[in-house]
Amino acid sequence: MYSIVVESIYLLVIVTLISVLQNAFFALKVEKEGNCQNIPTSTFERVCCANRNCMDAYPTFLAVMWCAGLCLNQAPAAFAGIIYLAVRQKYFVGYMGQTSQSTPGYMFGKRILFFLFLMCIVGIFNYLLVRYCSSEYKEYVETITGAASALLLIP
Amino acid sequence: MYSIVVESIYLLVIVTLISVLQNAFFALKVEKEGNCQNIPTSTFERVCCANRNCMDAYPTFLAVMWCAGLCLNQAPAAFAGIIYLAVRQKYFVGYMGQTSQSTPGYMFGKRILFFLFLMCIVGIFNYLLVRYCSSEYKEYVETITGAASALLLIP
Amino acid sequence: MYSIVVESIYLLVIVTLISVLQNAFFALKVEKEGNCQNIPTSTFERVCCANRNCMDAYPTFLAVMWCAGLCLNQAPAAFAGIIYLAVRQKYFVGYMGQTSQSTPGYMFGKRILFFLFLMCIVGIFNYLLVRYCSSEYKEYVETITGAASALLLIP
Repeated sequence: MYSIVVESIYLLVIVTLISVLQNAFFALKVEKEGNCQNIPTSTFERVCCANRNCMDAYPTFLAVMWCAGLCLNQAPAAFAGIIYLAVRQKYFVGYMGQTSQSTPGYMFGKRILFFLFLMCIVGIFNYLLVRYCSSEYKEYVETITGAASALLLIP
Repeated sequence: MYSIVVESIYLLVIVTLISVLQNAFFALKVEKEGNCQNIPTSTFERVCCANRNCMDAYPTFLAVMWCAGLCLNQAPAAFAGIIYLAVRQKYFVGYMGQTSQSTPGYMFGKRILFFLFLMCIVGIFNYLLVRYCSSEYKEYVETITGAASALLLIP
Repeated sequence: MYSIVVESIYLLVIVTLISVLQNAFFALKVEKEGNCQNIPTSTFERVCCANRNCMDAYPTFLAVMWCAGLCLNQAPAAFAGIIYLAVRQKYFVGYMGQTSQSTPGYMFGKRILFFLFLMCIVGIFNYLLVRYCSSEYKEYVETITGAASALLLIP
């Protein structure tokens, strides 16, 4: 039981651990900015805002990634997760660096979340097909998903 | 392994996907209000506040729903999840529409979360009974839970 | 299938339920402070801030605890989770009681999260060892982890 479970989730766990590290990095930034009182307040507010937007989207991201990994295949889901974390890092840094006139929007990584969302739907649809029609497209679908996840690299 | 796992969670995954869609809807509302600068600020603040309250409760909801679904039975848990999402939608719309004198409270859907919470406790209690007393009430409990979930429809 | 799943997660579910109860306690505090308008605003702001910091870290905590419990062993993970909840309670109460000059930092429970994080890494590393080297250190590691979790009690 043990190794079967770990085998089917270990990539997801690794991505989750990386996201936790990133959360800790964000929290450290917030704490550091909050401590130095001589800097202008707007920097602290910007860091706070960026951290909040990232944290607001975090449970959604985790839920979609784990569902996609459990329902279909963990490798493309973990790959999309890694790319999402890279986008989030870029978003956070971009939020801190710039003036308040041109803050980026509230949402980010929409394309990746949409891809993971699609993976969940395909996985459930495939399960229902297997159950009611006894037809098996899973391997076919997994190959397509693996190939499609490479498209996420296109900026 | 694959289809056993998916079989026991697919309803929960569907509800999670719907909740993700709802999160995206809330985030779009926030982004849209944030962009139009000519509207009074209080609207933006209200949308922001409603979104924040919903997001604060989101991990709690996900955790309780998945625990209830895994420990006892996924059908009543998913049903309660759907009702929770409907209550949340109503809360968000109600928050936006009204004046600041009568904002609804910070919490919502208490009854549904309580029901899911009870399901978890019953599930764990049942497991401990099976383990230590070798008695099996699971099917009996599942029938009661299925029937009790219908009571959530009462406003 | 059912009892195997529940057997390997029931301690984690119990800790999750306790954390949900704690979340409800925090939310009640926020709602109560928001309702009484005659108290000074700073109290409400402090409660709000404490609640927000706790809620920001909540998905991270849940993710790490469940990963650690699934990848290695649920008992030490659940034990660390309980201690984390105690630390969080102390943090929340401490945040409310004091003056604004000496607010505690943004982060708390770093040591416990780090311990859970380490458990995840050890679990995945052990799985990879089993898979590629056919060697089995799991029971050995579990004993060490169980003993190490007692060290978290040291303040």
